[in-house]
Amino acid sequence: MTTLTNIPLSVEWKDTHIRLLDQQKLPQETIFLELRTIQDVFDAIVTLKVRGAPAIGIAAAYGLALSAQGYETSNISEFRVLLKNDSDYLASSRPTAVNLFWALERLLSASERACSVNEAKTILVHEAINIQMEDEATCRDIGEHALGLFQKGNKVLTICNAGSIATARYGTALSPFYLAKERNFPLSVYACETRPVLQGARLTAWELQQAGVDVTLITDSMAAHTIQSKGIDAIIVGADRITANGDTANKIGTFGLAILARAFQIPFYVAAPLSTFDLSKDTGSEITIEERDPEEVTSIGGRKVAPEGISVFNPAFDVTPNDFITAIITEKGVIKGDYLSKIKELFI
Amino acid sequence: MTTLTNIPLSVEWKDTHIRLLDQQKLPQETIFLELRTIQDVFDAIVTLKVRGAPAIGIAAAYGLALSAQGYETSNISEFRVLLKNDSDYLASSRPTAVNLFWALERLLSASERACSVNEAKTILVHEAINIQMEDEATCRDIGEHALGLFQKGNKVLTICNAGSIATARYGTALSPFYLAKERNFPLSVYACETRPVLQGARLTAWELQQAGVDVTLITDSMAAHTIQSKGIDAIIVGADRITANGDTANKIGTFGLAILARAFQIPFYVAAPLSTFDLSKDTGSEITIEERDPEEVTSIGGRKVAPEGISVFNPAFDVTPNDFITAIITEKGVIKGDYLSKIKELFI
Repeated sequence: MTTLTNIPLSVEWKDTHIRLLDQQKLPQETIFLELRTIQDVFDAIVTLKVRGAPAIGIAAAYGLALSAQGYETSNISEFRVLLKNDSDYLASSRPTAVNLFWALERLLSASERACSVNEAKTILVHEAINIQMEDEATCRDIGEHALGLFQKGNKVLTICNAGSIATARYGTALSPFYLAKERNFPLSVYACETRPVLQGARLTAWELQQAGVDVTLITDSMAAHTIQSKGIDAIIVGADRITANGDTANKIGTFGLAILARAFQIPFYVAAPLSTFDLSKDTGSEITIEERDPEEVTSIGGRKVAPEGISVFNPAFDVTPNDFITAIITEKGVIKGDYLSKIKELFI
Repeated sequence: MTTLTNIPLSVEWKDTHIRLLDQQKLPQETIFLELRTIQDVFDAIVTLKVRGAPAIGIAAAYGLALSAQGYETSNISEFRVLLKNDSDYLASSRPTAVNLFWALERLLSASERACSVNEAKTILVHEAINIQMEDEATCRDIGEHALGLFQKGNKVLTICNAGSIATARYGTALSPFYLAKERNFPLSVYACETRPVLQGARLTAWELQQAGVDVTLITDSMAAHTIQSKGIDAIIVGADRITANGDTANKIGTFGLAILARAFQIPFYVAAPLSTFDLSKDTGSEITIEERDPEEVTSIGGRKVAPEGISVFNPAFDVTPNDFITAIITEKGVIKGDYLSKIKELFI
């Protein structure tokens, strides 16, 4: 087994700057930005150059740590005021990103341990690196557990981008494919393009291709025919939110794939870290489905593909009921069956 | 009841020329071309300015009739040679279009009745107009039968463009929506955009909008969530080919919708004229699924949406097995149940 060196990374700490993959330029151009100021980091988050909840959290943590290195005070109280201001500034970059607040809060809290400004600066960098390393370990564990569900030669379908560039490394739903590649364990991936925003075509196809994983792109409408004619063995997807009973909100199109999986009697897997579970919600019916700009449907890359003034329905997510889900794969292992109690056990 | 005057027409005979809707320019621009020579008609077919099997047949018939008006000979044998040459020329414009050959053959055969060149010229125009009128009547009959399956206020999902501009008028799957509009019978339509070529977004959304039909556009990936959250009552689609047992080949994505219809326990209807049935094939497994240029998936409107060199699977059609089809609607009425014998009866 060799560790794959060509899995694309979204964010990397480079001591004097943060190296960030510009996901807005993909797949036409592979550009790595050098972020040197907190404004650079703020702008990168606002303009969606970095996306994926864990990757955003990591970028923000590094942004705060980087900014703090430049504070010229040696007074720890003054340092903490500056740090809080910068943290608030970064937190305002994407007000709905839970991981963003969580990561910034973790840095603020870690810095409380410091007795001096120098110690605080060191702690902040270490804590940010820890956040990334922990996320990488989480993703790798998810990948290990998920890979155990596949047989050699399996063909696996996925949607959206639950991949390396959305996390610290490896991703969630895509993690088993990287581990399989490391071990020469043959797997083929079919990636749904994921309209309207095309994360499957632009990001998943790209990152798996970069790492040499066998990946084939299809439109979302081709899923049924592909499952049947190519003999797809399983479907694996990420999750935006999982409620206490296992109902799973994920990119629009996921629920349709779950229905196809049942119709073709193949397993439908959800891969997600514990941080994705929202135990404050009992079932998926409590999740509000965001509706987004009609322009995402009527235009592609600036080109109009529908008539002016047409009515559009553009839900960003759908909810897959728990009984369509064969298993949920977390860093703690694989759960199936009575999700309500199994999920409760995960958090004991 | 009023007859709708704003249903877009693909082809119209204008004595001195043929008026043709340029479907390649839709939905950005609504341009009607004046075709004045047989080369104009040939080019319009080759460059897909006209599409849909019936519409292509009608355009070709008018093209041949128009060209014949200009023959300067008064010798009927000489006339027939010229006519056969022009017919062969038009037949070569789209070698897989069955309706094209059928329409041209019908004109050649009708002209056999003529004793003089003048009579032949008149017969050709009449026969071409008859082809269009018959197709319009067929589509209207399909619409009448289909409308009988819907209740007031129903919400109906469709895919691709089985519409007015693919036929003489009204279309097949879209025909009931025009008839409902004529009668102030309230129906709402949800149109799947139909990747990769976006016939739903570009054509169906446009033509229904032109006629004032209540239509909402969604991506194909939104079908499951839309059926559930909007309470879709039925799905209706056209067909490219129906085999002797009722298995139906249609635009890629159709089979997935049929599976969703079953999962949500709503009816799934196929609307098609008798000319779509291919009784030489027993089941859908005998239909070869055309795979098209990967570029259709990797580019949209000239813009790359996927990485260079990515593998693509691009089947143009899928086959919906007969047991997923609640009813097939033809100009002769609605059939359901034992398709093998019911289809046989249609052709007695």
